[in-house]
Amino acid sequence: RGIRVGYTPDVLTDATAELSVALLLSACRRLPEAAEQVKSGGWTTWKPLWMCGYGLSDSTVGIIGLGRIGQAVARRLKPFGVKKFLYTGSGPKPEVAAEFGAEFVPLMKLAEESDFVVVTCALTPATQGMCNKDFFGRMKKTSVFVNTSRGAVVNQEDLYDALTQGQIAAAGLDVTTPEPLPTDHPLLSLKNCVILPHIGSATYATRSTMAVLAANNLLAGLRGEPMPHELKL
Amino acid sequence: RGIRVGYTPDVLTDATAELSVALLLSACRRLPEAAEQVKSGGWTTWKPLWMCGYGLSDSTVGIIGLGRIGQAVARRLKPFGVKKFLYTGSGPKPEVAAEFGAEFVPLMKLAEESDFVVVTCALTPATQGMCNKDFFGRMKKTSVFVNTSRGAVVNQEDLYDALTQGQIAAAGLDVTTPEPLPTDHPLLSLKNCVILPHIGSATYATRSTMAVLAANNLLAGLRGEPMPHELKL
Repeated sequence: RGIRVGYTPDVLTDATAELSVALLLSACRRLPEAAEQVKSGGWTTWKPLWMCGYGLSDSTVGIIGLGRIGQAVARRLKPFGVKKFLYTGSGPKPEVAAEFGAEFVPLMKLAEESDFVVVTCALTPATQGMCNKDFFGRMKKTSVFVNTSRGAVVNQEDLYDALTQGQIAAAGLDVTTPEPLPTDHPLLSLKNCVILPHIGSATYATRSTMAVLAANNLLAGLRGEPMPHELKL
Repeated sequence: RGIRVGYTPDVLTDATAELSVALLLSACRRLPEAAEQVKSGGWTTWKPLWMCGYGLSDSTVGIIGLGRIGQAVARRLKPFGVKKFLYTGSGPKPEVAAEFGAEFVPLMKLAEESDFVVVTCALTPATQGMCNKDFFGRMKKTSVFVNTSRGAVVNQEDLYDALTQGQIAAAGLDVTTPEPLPTDHPLLSLKNCVILPHIGSATYATRSTMAVLAANNLLAGLRGEPMPHELKL
């Protein structure tokens, strides 16, 4: 009560969208597994289908939550030859979706038709546990699932089952429940699951901008002036 | 003599450009190192600069060899907020470079000014060993080097020195000399070097297209007909 709170909106959109694409490509082109093969001696002569993955050319990409970060992801993925963008969320955003020719669809249709699913929505009561057994069960066996929003949007036990039973091809997670994820978590044992330690905004430029903005909020607060970005409850 | 040889041009441009971007992002955002921290328990509480990398926003990207694959890489990197594209090669290609506003520069100027260097040129007597001590010595300490062309374009001893002495920040290689790279090679011991087993064209779709084209070449050859793509010496 009486404590003013500053925050640092918008500054991490680019870094997080970039990391989302990095994670998607790492998962679909099997980078960690391929790098491990170099170290272990698994790399031998050329074989037609060895270490093959699923590329973005002619694919359908489904984005859950076409907000600032979701749009920035779509903008970056478009020149990879994506054929069609789908999105879902609280409602259609025709003016935003027009840039990508993206079609608003129900969640389960997005699961069924997407070759890549990228989760960039906020965590709310409506999205908590939304990516569950039913959802993964509708996805294609060749599809790739990426989450860079909040860990609790995903039911991790159901994701584990989907990955081990071949319901989906691969997953990439920058967020988990809990964080940090225990080092003995079953998801960490899977070759087709890339897990990062919540580094979406981890670029030197972004963290520097965040620090400056936080400092300006603080100085304004101490001076009793309006903060550049103050949380209003 | 008298043996006809078919080949499969063009079909791997998209997959290789995609892999180049995947490798660049993995190296600059430190994905293998970050994933390893999750497994080893290095992921603890939030720290401002932990696992930070260098993003593409406002960067200068230098492309060595603006051929089909180099252009496809530039097209994919552009929406990440790249400020400026530079390129070098056998000569300026103004009609091609216009799409990216890319500037033709000498090799050493490209090394000095680029935040990211991507090698997508052919291996020729002129390019063999081109990325050497002099080249890496001109690069920025914060820059990232990516090679998806042929391993022999790079002097690997000089790259090792550049990575260990902090002359450059990170590297990503999909090609090496020799291939496979011996598992005790010094480059494999570095956290800031991502090495992949030449998987540029390794997508199911690309390899399937390559196989069909190779089979059509073969059938045409057996029938004594013109091949779809025949090597003319």
